[in-house]
Amino acid sequence: MQLGLVGLGKMGFNMRDRLRAGGHEVIGYDPRPEVTDVPSLKGLAEALDAPRVVWVMVPSGPITQQTIAELSEELSEGDLVIDGGNSRFTEDKPNADLLAAKGIGYIDAGVSGGVWGKENGYGLMVGGSDEDVARAMPIFDTLRPEGERADGFVHAGPVGAGHYAKMIHNGIEYGLMHAYAEGYELLAAEPLITDVQAVLQAWTKGTVVRSWLLDLLAKALKEDPGFDAISGYTEDSGEGRWTVEEAINHRVPAPVIAASLFARFASRQEDSPAMKAVSALRNQFGGHAVKRVGLSG
Amino acid sequence: MQLGLVGLGKMGFNMRDRLRAGGHEVIGYDPRPEVTDVPSLKGLAEALDAPRVVWVMVPSGPITQQTIAELSEELSEGDLVIDGGNSRFTEDKPNADLLAAKGIGYIDAGVSGGVWGKENGYGLMVGGSDEDVARAMPIFDTLRPEGERADGFVHAGPVGAGHYAKMIHNGIEYGLMHAYAEGYELLAAEPLITDVQAVLQAWTKGTVVRSWLLDLLAKALKEDPGFDAISGYTEDSGEGRWTVEEAINHRVPAPVIAASLFARFASRQEDSPAMKAVSALRNQFGGHAVKRVGLSG
Amino acid sequence: MQLGLVGLGKMGFNMRDRLRAGGHEVIGYDPRPEVTDVPSLKGLAEALDAPRVVWVMVPSGPITQQTIAELSEELSEGDLVIDGGNSRFTEDKPNADLLAAKGIGYIDAGVSGGVWGKENGYGLMVGGSDEDVARAMPIFDTLRPEGERADGFVHAGPVGAGHYAKMIHNGIEYGLMHAYAEGYELLAAEPLITDVQAVLQAWTKGTVVRSWLLDLLAKALKEDPGFDAISGYTEDSGEGRWTVEEAINHRVPAPVIAASLFARFASRQEDSPAMKAVSALRNQFGGHAVKRVGLSG
Amino acid sequence: MQLGLVGLGKMGFNMRDRLRAGGHEVIGYDPRPEVTDVPSLKGLAEALDAPRVVWVMVPSGPITQQTIAELSEELSEGDLVIDGGNSRFTEDKPNADLLAAKGIGYIDAGVSGGVWGKENGYGLMVGGSDEDVARAMPIFDTLRPEGERADGFVHAGPVGAGHYAKMIHNGIEYGLMHAYAEGYELLAAEPLITDVQAVLQAWTKGTVVRSWLLDLLAKALKEDPGFDAISGYTEDSGEGRWTVEEAINHRVPAPVIAASLFARFASRQEDSPAMKAVSALRNQFGGHAVKRVGLSG
Repeated sequence: MQLGLVGLGKMGFNMRDRLRAGGHEVIGYDPRPEVTDVPSLKGLAEALDAPRVVWVMVPSGPITQQTIAELSEELSEGDLVIDGGNSRFTEDKPNADLLAAKGIGYIDAGVSGGVWGKENGYGLMVGGSDEDVARAMPIFDTLRPEGERADGFVHAGPVGAGHYAKMIHNGIEYGLMHAYAEGYELLAAEPLITDVQAVLQAWTKGTVVRSWLLDLLAKALKEDPGFDAISGYTEDSGEGRWTVEEAINHRVPAPVIAASLFARFASRQEDSPAMKAVSALRNQFGGHAVKRVGLSG
Repeated sequence: MQLGLVGLGKMGFNMRDRLRAGGHEVIGYDPRPEVTDVPSLKGLAEALDAPRVVWVMVPSGPITQQTIAELSEELSEGDLVIDGGNSRFTEDKPNADLLAAKGIGYIDAGVSGGVWGKENGYGLMVGGSDEDVARAMPIFDTLRPEGERADGFVHAGPVGAGHYAKMIHNGIEYGLMHAYAEGYELLAAEPLITDVQAVLQAWTKGTVVRSWLLDLLAKALKEDPGFDAISGYTEDSGEGRWTVEEAINHRVPAPVIAASLFARFASRQEDSPAMKAVSALRNQFGGHAVKRVGLSG
Repeated sequence: MQLGLVGLGKMGFNMRDRLRAGGHEVIGYDPRPEVTDVPSLKGLAEALDAPRVVWVMVPSGPITQQTIAELSEELSEGDLVIDGGNSRFTEDKPNADLLAAKGIGYIDAGVSGGVWGKENGYGLMVGGSDEDVARAMPIFDTLRPEGERADGFVHAGPVGAGHYAKMIHNGIEYGLMHAYAEGYELLAAEPLITDVQAVLQAWTKGTVVRSWLLDLLAKALKEDPGFDAISGYTEDSGEGRWTVEEAINHRVPAPVIAASLFARFASRQEDSPAMKAVSALRNQFGGHAVKRVGLSG
Repeated sequence: MQLGLVGLGKMGFNMRDRLRAGGHEVIGYDPRPEVTDVPSLKGLAEALDAPRVVWVMVPSGPITQQTIAELSEELSEGDLVIDGGNSRFTEDKPNADLLAAKGIGYIDAGVSGGVWGKENGYGLMVGGSDEDVARAMPIFDTLRPEGERADGFVHAGPVGAGHYAKMIHNGIEYGLMHAYAEGYELLAAEPLITDVQAVLQAWTKGTVVRSWLLDLLAKALKEDPGFDAISGYTEDSGEGRWTVEEAINHRVPAPVIAASLFARFASRQEDSPAMKAVSALRNQFGGHAVKRVGLSG
């Protein structure tokens, strides 16, 4: 089928390729002239046959909001917008309402798979009406991994459900990554273990902990033994924070995901204000030796 | 090759099948007459041709210690014992020394894969001398999953390294399971999500969080919707505790694995003494309403 | 000085007493006829001499919002409203703006001390302009504990700073309580300790962990040995949740406060959905015995 | 009464002063000539009248073991040894047995209060027989804070109970310190708060979180605004680690104490191996920008 695709960054660019390879006609828009198929959102709307389907794949937050607002101007009754970015699920209802006022449909789609999705397919979680989802199904079927639809695609519920599922997916991802990371650090700390990479590699088949993330970890450590070339400074990108906030909203204990998130925060601190306070306290009551700034250790 | 196998429980029984299917001659011993091939450890030693290789697959702790002590009496110089149980790695050196005093070799082998290993193969992590490991390699090659040896088997280091690697494997496993569990609980708490099982199922391909554990979780929830038939009461089996102890020994922060372990402890408490203390405190300073034992609400 | 006091519940009632004992003229309003001094907010406004100072001490959330909105109707330019409830600091700016539009000043005041404050004085953290704070200082000086003003009162910053400080105070409180609670549970679990209450009592003087909360914990355990009469079911009242949300906003690791909060969430669950998932997983891969609902043991 | 005191370091030296001020005859031994009263342990034994009471106040671990072994040679039947150091409670039974074989009694004493104990008195938790404890009571009564004996002293149980109680005391201490530290960091991160020290100071009276540790924290921040002069690098001294190990032994969830301990471990890492692994993983699946070692920003 025909699809408009707004945003041809790392994700959108690959998705266009996969969709075209799947036989769809994709007209992409991106502000960068070297990748765009049309000069503007208006041009995109004009290039598409009504009723149109437009997939938005731009950074979450204000840029997504603005893109959808502009699309609401350019599109017409009966069109359909899909937000495939990592938007917070709370933004979906306002987006849907804005578009619905003009008779335009809305689907929120969580997309997982990263740079590997072009080849492997993307895990998809979508929210919206049955009718809208059915309409975009040919697109979803091409984007998702081959095999059973239910193993790589879910219509998770009404508008918002797709991004909610993707948020939780990413929260889990934080926990999984940190569980492996703790195990890695423990292996690396133990003199009995003569080759940490070989242990991780040996876990990739047959074990209980085998997973795609483990495959990647073994691969990464092979490429950069000892992770000597990489810093522990680690960004976090919204979904982890939102997941913990949802845990609070729903009164759900989430110690693992929260610990993973906090470890990222800590990784970005040069020194920890909290630990300065602890150190100062120890000095106060115990006369314990503390490390002064500027002195060697 | 020929192998003696002590312990024909859930794991040993399946391993005997897989090894026999792989062309090995396996003579099994188990105290239960209905499954054993020989009447005693002495009988096992007699039935094997020297130099013997004997795999011990019995519950970790005193039973393993005792089995190895008895084997040290029945076996001879040049024989080899493999402890494939979930022993703590600190017990390997004493076992190896006991056997070495009689000229008997020792390998510790961590075995992962559970009841699925018979079919899929077992992930193997072993510790010992190059010579001993080479000698038992035909056994390892049959037990491990098909494909590259390095993807399902590792000679992780000297005696102790196999069980160390298995311990960390299980520690990671605790963290992974709890990360999925928190995500599950959050999905189940959110009204937007209309079918939690379908979301988990849709994550099994293409997503960043896909894994064997996730496959099992989706399967489990399909078999028991809402987990209505199962209690949250959850045992822990040693390796999780030992992993946290190793984290302490190595001064490695392990908040995710520790949180997963503590959640299991908490799951087995009818009421939490700590929370009674918190509740009592709130009552003291705030006159907050607290729940009295035996009252509803 | 003269003060209007809206809300004569557990806290407000005691504060009226303390203020009157300190020589202030307090006119209290509460919807309950048996405690109120005036029949309505309008009556309160009429009973006070302009320029008025009115302290609001009602439950945080909608009731506080509504009370302040009503006061903005009844009061006049030059008056001053103090919100002494446990409002979220993000609500202070809107409240202040609403009142400022009518020329009415606003102070947010965090008040700590619980039911003991009447006798011991209340710890006070306030936010607002220098001028407004100076105007209400006679009230603050009577409410706060005797001694140096700086030891029981702080003008923490502009509007919002008082409630922010109070929120963090309560977040810390969660952590402190849970630290003691874990220690209590460990003492109670150890057979060597013959009298847990006596240990807590002995810590109340001279030790590093001595505190007012510890005094209360020792007292509570004396009154209810073994905490037999109390349930571990524990509410949480907003500030703990908001503190973790602020930790996320400011990218500050807060594992202790988050763990304390999550423990409260868990205390209110009959069974843990997350642990059901873990238990189901263990059953899947290991054939581990799991506890079925409705079966003993 | 007369007391031998082995170890005149930071703690022992102050204790000698307090005991002498309390009217006791204290003969101290320390390898440093400038502080010792006698030239050797043998000299100490000779200088004391039988039956002797000797308090050992040396670093926990091998030095304590060795000191007690040597004392067992120098002392005689009917004497009494008190280990007042921070020994692990598991070492008490062996020490007691060693001494009991020669008819010498043993008490383990946990001592809290740090450098402030000389003036304020020390919180004391002791383990041993009723008879031995009664015999040393005049010493305990002088060392403990003034006031009710039960508020600063406990006979917590048989041999080992004193050090067990002290271990838990210190585990709680870790949690309390970190709760305040998190709160401090949050206050410091919030622009609304104009003077963090003033907030902490204002909490020292009347609030729920008031404590001796808070007094010290407010003092420390006054002396070193912004904690600019101190590093977050923080040692841990045994009891915190042992407390978490006891939590594991007793299957008691201890997330707060464990988190506090892990934060200390993390504070001593230049970079986190675990976070390097997380960062490498993000790079693998997402092509996320990661921080390379040696590059800015």
